[in-house]
Amino acid sequence: METITTTPVVITPEALLEHWQGHRRLTRRTIEAFPADKLFTYSVGGMRPFSALAGEMISMAGPSMYGFVTGRWDPVDERGHLLTEAPKPDTQAGLLEQWDETTDIINTLWPRIRPDRFQENDKLFNMWESAIYSGIFYLIDNEIHHRGQGYVYLRSLGIEPPPFWERD
Amino acid sequence: METITTTPVVITPEALLEHWQGHRRLTRRTIEAFPADKLFTYSVGGMRPFSALAGEMISMAGPSMYGFVTGRWDPVDERGHLLTEAPKPDTQAGLLEQWDETTDIINTLWPRIRPDRFQENDKLFNMWESAIYSGIFYLIDNEIHHRGQGYVYLRSLGIEPPPFWERD
Repeated sequence: METITTTPVVITPEALLEHWQGHRRLTRRTIEAFPADKLFTYSVGGMRPFSALAGEMISMAGPSMYGFVTGRWDPVDERGHLLTEAPKPDTQAGLLEQWDETTDIINTLWPRIRPDRFQENDKLFNMWESAIYSGIFYLIDNEIHHRGQGYVYLRSLGIEPPPFWERD
Repeated sequence: METITTTPVVITPEALLEHWQGHRRLTRRTIEAFPADKLFTYSVGGMRPFSALAGEMISMAGPSMYGFVTGRWDPVDERGHLLTEAPKPDTQAGLLEQWDETTDIINTLWPRIRPDRFQENDKLFNMWESAIYSGIFYLIDNEIHHRGQGYVYLRSLGIEPPPFWERD
């Protein structure tokens, strides 16, 4: 009898998309939890306001998804910043609109990531050698990291952040 | 010709362990970055000090690993807190020692997670219905979330946190 060795499935592509979008729904609620002015002005310890942290997530997600699918990467400068970034909204509604556009971009492009692509290496943004799965995890982890910082901003404003474990 | 449908490999069990331990190395450096007293006393916005956040990570990781492997879960109270928690160290060296013990527990138990276990559902701590992979991600995500909060504590103390992207 033939023996077939299979690699265990830790998480399927579909489940990883859902995992990420669950996090993104929570981040969206975090954006909404800020008073409109504080979103763009308030921070702790000289850090960036939450609008800038959320803006970073947006600016990374779309171009990364494009690169994961196509292997083509938008140009960045020597500090890793995109040369052709989307305009930065200056209202809460504008930021949420851009957030939702990115949600659609991710959902549209995700099924176009070739199944064997997750384990491939690429040079992300022509700068960082990485497996594709690792690049995806970096996006999610960076979002969790900065959202956690937004929770501290909210707490120090006396505002209860959305529950961490709710992802619906 | 026979057609075999395979599930794409997003991440292997070995790579997920390395991903988590990379995050744990960064969290360890974050514990070390705090002045010894501030680790146990300082916070922002009425939140818990970083010693308590790191202690939560420690208290979740070991018992969860044991449950992932065996399907047996340590008892928790109605708030989800372990009834038989490890003693809480009150020094930075003691906390780091407990951190390193947990590193060994994770490395020892990880290869004993059955390959088909990641996709299984279980009732974690006899309380939360979840796939095992989802429980593992929750541990990692919760660690990133709280470590990001520790970064704000450090910044507000005028201390530069360790670089987020370094995981060695």
